Amino acid sequence: MSNGKIYVVGIGPGDKKHMTFRAVEAIKESDIIIGYKKYIELVNDLIDDKKIVSSQMKKEVERCEKTLEYAEDGKTVALVSSGDAGVYGMAGIMLEIVLKHKSDVEVEIVPGVSASNASAACVGAPLMHDFVTISLSDLLTDWSLIEKRLRLAAEGDFSVAIYNPKSKKRTEQIVIARDIFLKHKDKSTPVAIVRNAKREGEETILTDLENMLNFDIDMFTTVIIGNSNSYIDGGKMVTPRGYKI
Amino acid sequence: MSNGKIYVVGIGPGDKKHMTFRAVEAIKESDIIIGYKKYIELVNDLIDDKKIVSSQMKKEVERCEKTLEYAEDGKTVALVSSGDAGVYGMAGIMLEIVLKHKSDVEVEIVPGVSASNASAACVGAPLMHDFVTISLSDLLTDWSLIEKRLRLAAEGDFSVAIYNPKSKKRTEQIVIARDIFLKHKDKSTPVAIVRNAKREGEETILTDLENMLNFDIDMFTTVIIGNSNSYIDGGKMVTPRGYKI
Repeated sequence: MSNGKIYVVGIGPGDKKHMTFRAVEAIKESDIIIGYKKYIELVNDLIDDKKIVSSQMKKEVERCEKTLEYAEDGKTVALVSSGDAGVYGMAGIMLEIVLKHKSDVEVEIVPGVSASNASAACVGAPLMHDFVTISLSDLLTDWSLIEKRLRLAAEGDFSVAIYNPKSKKRTEQIVIARDIFLKHKDKSTPVAIVRNAKREGEETILTDLENMLNFDIDMFTTVIIGNSNSYIDGGKMVTPRGYKI
Repeated sequence: MSNGKIYVVGIGPGDKKHMTFRAVEAIKESDIIIGYKKYIELVNDLIDDKKIVSSQMKKEVERCEKTLEYAEDGKTVALVSSGDAGVYGMAGIMLEIVLKHKSDVEVEIVPGVSASNASAACVGAPLMHDFVTISLSDLLTDWSLIEKRLRLAAEGDFSVAIYNPKSKKRTEQIVIARDIFLKHKDKSTPVAIVRNAKREGEETILTDLENMLNFDIDMFTTVIIGNSNSYIDGGKMVTPRGYKI
């Protein structure tokens, strides 16, 4: 086995308070830190004088190839990923590249607090019951499959955490998603719009399906849609688990 | 507003390495630590000489009432919950009790690494795409709703993380769940059975829908079922995000 090691590190929502001890340890143990430059900035003060390889969005495959090269060369490398590395993050693609090259380098996935969990904590407890996580980005997934999943999530009365709800160029998906939900859920169903959850610039809005499109939604936003028992009270959104109180 | 404060703390999977800094800080800032005794034990060495109120399973409402009483009395109280407090944890019920009593005590939900994220990291990256979290416990949820959700999750080709798959008394639900999945998914669909994820006693099994019931499953286990693109290779389970490699 090569002497190098790859850590795929979920750094959590962005504020270091919400990183795990293992994530910090992995970064400190590494010789080289690789990641999308915004995420590197978030952990900058942990890095000291280590080598930094920062790269742009949409260069994920290249980034993993480079990570493997360094590890094969005997280095310990931390590939950083926001939230949990295993949810729309870098863990899967890194493992795919390692498998493709039939490399025997050790890969450790360091889990983190995902955007859905962080966003939920900002507004209360909207994901307390069975829930679905769906990304509206159709860059890597057929839109027809995303639409189908939105419909099934609505039919199943799941709470839903929506990732990548809207970008500058991709503005219509969230409108279609809301239309799908309105076919199965009441227009008063609680909705939370959480921007920059648990990091600098956190903004939370509690609204409902009827009014959700009146608020700013972007790529730093997670949208949480409740189930038929969810409610908003005292500035919190709660989905009851079912306890008799 | 009362001077007291309630932290609902997600302590993560159990090994302190996977706790967040904020979770440790919240426990250290608190006068009183409340929780199910197994979870108190997991964080015991952080507690020093603080007052500990440990309680039994199924006493969740009582535990939250007690937490609120202490906080109304001016104390800072940490109510600990395993995994992420907002996923089948203590966050929702605590907020419900606070709202019921129309209390103005401050409640901060401290998110943690949930069992699904921890389990996924143990075996690779099986939750890299849209996924569903479903609990098979019908203690607080009608079984008919759980069955419906299992069916919709299977139809939508979601990856699925199953919580509370089986207890000593409740053994049939996982059998029915598998039957539902077999109607929509190939019998070779990868399945991960993860026991004590990211804590002492971690055990992982990679298998498939056909064979999953041949292995031990209990309340410390999370079962992850892949989507139609998931695969097992090199001892890892991966659900591709869709990158061309």
